[in-house]
Amino acid sequence: MNFFTNMNIPNSTLPRIVIIGGGFAGIALAKKLKNKKVQVVLLDKHNYHTFQPLLYQVATGGLEAGSIAYPIRKVIQEYDDVYFRLTNVQEIDSKNQKIITEIGELKYDYLVIATGSKTNYFGNKEIERNSMAMKTIPQSLNIRSLILENFEQAVLTTDVAEQNSLINFVLVGGGPTGVELSGALAEMKKAILQKDYPDLDIAKMEINLIQSGDRILNTMSEKSSQAAEKFLTSLGVKIWKNVRVTNYDGRTITTNSDLTFETATVIWTAGVQGALIAGLDGKSLVEKVERIRVNEFNQVVGYENIFAVGDIASMESETYPQGHPMMAQPAMQQGELLGENLIKLIENKPMEAFEYSDKGSMATIGRNKAVVDLPNYHFSGVFAWFVWMFVHLFSLIGFKNKAVVFLNWVYNYIRFDREGRLIIRPYKKKSFTTFTSDEV
Amino acid sequence: MNFFTNMNIPNSTLPRIVIIGGGFAGIALAKKLKNKKVQVVLLDKHNYHTFQPLLYQVATGGLEAGSIAYPIRKVIQEYDDVYFRLTNVQEIDSKNQKIITEIGELKYDYLVIATGSKTNYFGNKEIERNSMAMKTIPQSLNIRSLILENFEQAVLTTDVAEQNSLINFVLVGGGPTGVELSGALAEMKKAILQKDYPDLDIAKMEINLIQSGDRILNTMSEKSSQAAEKFLTSLGVKIWKNVRVTNYDGRTITTNSDLTFETATVIWTAGVQGALIAGLDGKSLVEKVERIRVNEFNQVVGYENIFAVGDIASMESETYPQGHPMMAQPAMQQGELLGENLIKLIENKPMEAFEYSDKGSMATIGRNKAVVDLPNYHFSGVFAWFVWMFVHLFSLIGFKNKAVVFLNWVYNYIRFDREGRLIIRPYKKKSFTTFTSDEV
Repeated sequence: MNFFTNMNIPNSTLPRIVIIGGGFAGIALAKKLKNKKVQVVLLDKHNYHTFQPLLYQVATGGLEAGSIAYPIRKVIQEYDDVYFRLTNVQEIDSKNQKIITEIGELKYDYLVIATGSKTNYFGNKEIERNSMAMKTIPQSLNIRSLILENFEQAVLTTDVAEQNSLINFVLVGGGPTGVELSGALAEMKKAILQKDYPDLDIAKMEINLIQSGDRILNTMSEKSSQAAEKFLTSLGVKIWKNVRVTNYDGRTITTNSDLTFETATVIWTAGVQGALIAGLDGKSLVEKVERIRVNEFNQVVGYENIFAVGDIASMESETYPQGHPMMAQPAMQQGELLGENLIKLIENKPMEAFEYSDKGSMATIGRNKAVVDLPNYHFSGVFAWFVWMFVHLFSLIGFKNKAVVFLNWVYNYIRFDREGRLIIRPYKKKSFTTFTSDEV
Repeated sequence: MNFFTNMNIPNSTLPRIVIIGGGFAGIALAKKLKNKKVQVVLLDKHNYHTFQPLLYQVATGGLEAGSIAYPIRKVIQEYDDVYFRLTNVQEIDSKNQKIITEIGELKYDYLVIATGSKTNYFGNKEIERNSMAMKTIPQSLNIRSLILENFEQAVLTTDVAEQNSLINFVLVGGGPTGVELSGALAEMKKAILQKDYPDLDIAKMEINLIQSGDRILNTMSEKSSQAAEKFLTSLGVKIWKNVRVTNYDGRTITTNSDLTFETATVIWTAGVQGALIAGLDGKSLVEKVERIRVNEFNQVVGYENIFAVGDIASMESETYPQGHPMMAQPAMQQGELLGENLIKLIENKPMEAFEYSDKGSMATIGRNKAVVDLPNYHFSGVFAWFVWMFVHLFSLIGFKNKAVVFLNWVYNYIRFDREGRLIIRPYKKKSFTTFTSDEV
């Protein structure tokens, strides 16, 4: 492909705002800029917005990928002077006010980095190569395929150790993703796998959740941690606390104690880091977590016209000394406010400082089992589960996705079933191919 | 992977029936053998049954893949002594009554070949390498990705010839698949693409349907051919009759006349052939179409205990001198009858000869536009379209798939929309990768 100047985007007398990323923050921002006196260019490496909180249901066959994805071009269909381009941004050249991408360069007047986060392996390349991540839809589909492929393979072997390893699933990281995914796996075991694979002794299927700290869901309340632990245990998930994984070579997990796990499947949810783009000054970055330091207007420290919102942005304050939690809520709120602030900035009006309104957090463990933390109140169980479902349904973009997800949930609930146990694209382990984690 | 003797399937005192293929014929057969005094082994290279008549809607973003796929293990979940194995069968060793597969060998008492059909390029390797086929779900998803990737690329270029080539879609073959897919593409153009890509001159998007014979849908009635042609033309599809494609090098289609087409996308629906497995005697095969010659009991000519059903089977008769049409109906009817006949054979009772009950055929072109041929009656238009929808909904396996497809259709109809315009797995043209057409 040739490189095109300004990606075939017409010049405009209006200021050009370039948004990198169509996640929660980027979409919220683009919506706020609808038909304002600016030109907006929205870039993403996928042509759809991903509703990440439900990725684990795609991974476990409860939902189809399309139900949690929404075409970005549809979001902006009726906006004037808004352009979408499908590409990876490679570098920011702040001196020349342009970005460098796979499909050419683009000048900006204002740049907003909304690239979100990616899996953090804390520098361990061997773990990265051998374990599965779950930050994107293709990654979730890979997990789904791998689970099913492992079972198909387990049916074939008479080697007990190999068979056990194939049906031993280890999740590293006891945050919401690890908790929700291990709960869903436990339900998949009971509802599907034991019926689909009658020639296997399903009792041997293990789901191990390893948490380095002393409680799971450690960003939630103590009460929620305890409830979640009780729920998971009742579903048969083995929880290992205060255990730190030191390596995984594709066969054996080693830890900081004598404990080891023989497993063909490790799902790594132990950490996230900002999805950084090269080119920013080192002083703007928070090391290790790779987030971008921003002021109270989401303005990147050291730059006038570069902003960052969502997971990638670290807005340090007294209440949030390490920035806001890397979740949908702060991302959407920041995106919305930045939309208003950019217009103010252009009109030479004072911008408004961001204040995070914490609406609470929640996690679901299984049918009738969820935990909800509101700022001053915690609850768990059936009602929490209904609240969780209602909030997630309501948050999905688009009527059709809401309706299809609802229909699937009702069906799965009544029938104790998940019909998405389909190996559409077989997954080959990364170690045997040349995929990098960004490509999948 | 090691090779396992008999694929870890327990020995049985009952006769073992091995079915290769979980398509319409294979599934109908397996259902008939439920809890009979036989051991059944069902093999497929996918872990799901594909409802092929709706593949074109997956390719054009109207339906999700999961809505037309059904887990094979779920079909046989409550059957005694039935085993599913996910594998490719490589060879039949009839002398030793066994098959050779990727996961080892398996002895059979009765073998049923229900492998269906695959795209027929009539020996032209260059066309095969450069064009898209639509016989499987992954192939349909590839077409979907390619259509959208072409549009994303077209937006970037200022080279008019390249742009035109990127949004020129050529379908070769005017059978039901070519007709339905070109109609769906035409609706996608109007309903989605012109709204999603306002910076492109959508009027330049072409859909060309090339048919070597003198009418499209030439297996249907003259009246239906004419109606379909009228419908397609009204949707803006250009139909080229009596044109035979001679080559496609990835850029230019050449034909048996002066006519050429510059296009980045060729979808080849010009022919199918049996998906043969090596090892059968040449005398049992019908050359060119690569089908297996069977007698009136679907018994492969020259073999006592090998049968073939569905597309792969050619049962020549006075009414069907070249075998039955390669469609779902004959496949299901043959599968069902063979189920009964195998039990009769085992019980030393006389088998019943197959007689195809032609329930008619139909094709849909677009909203409110379909053609239906009943044995003595032809009709087209809105009512035909409702009949088409009802029959297809009714034929899908499983309540959830029916409900989700229905919901999508209602939504797409009311909103003139298709939200499945998602590039989940980007498609790289085969010529640039090492994929073979069987792998995708």
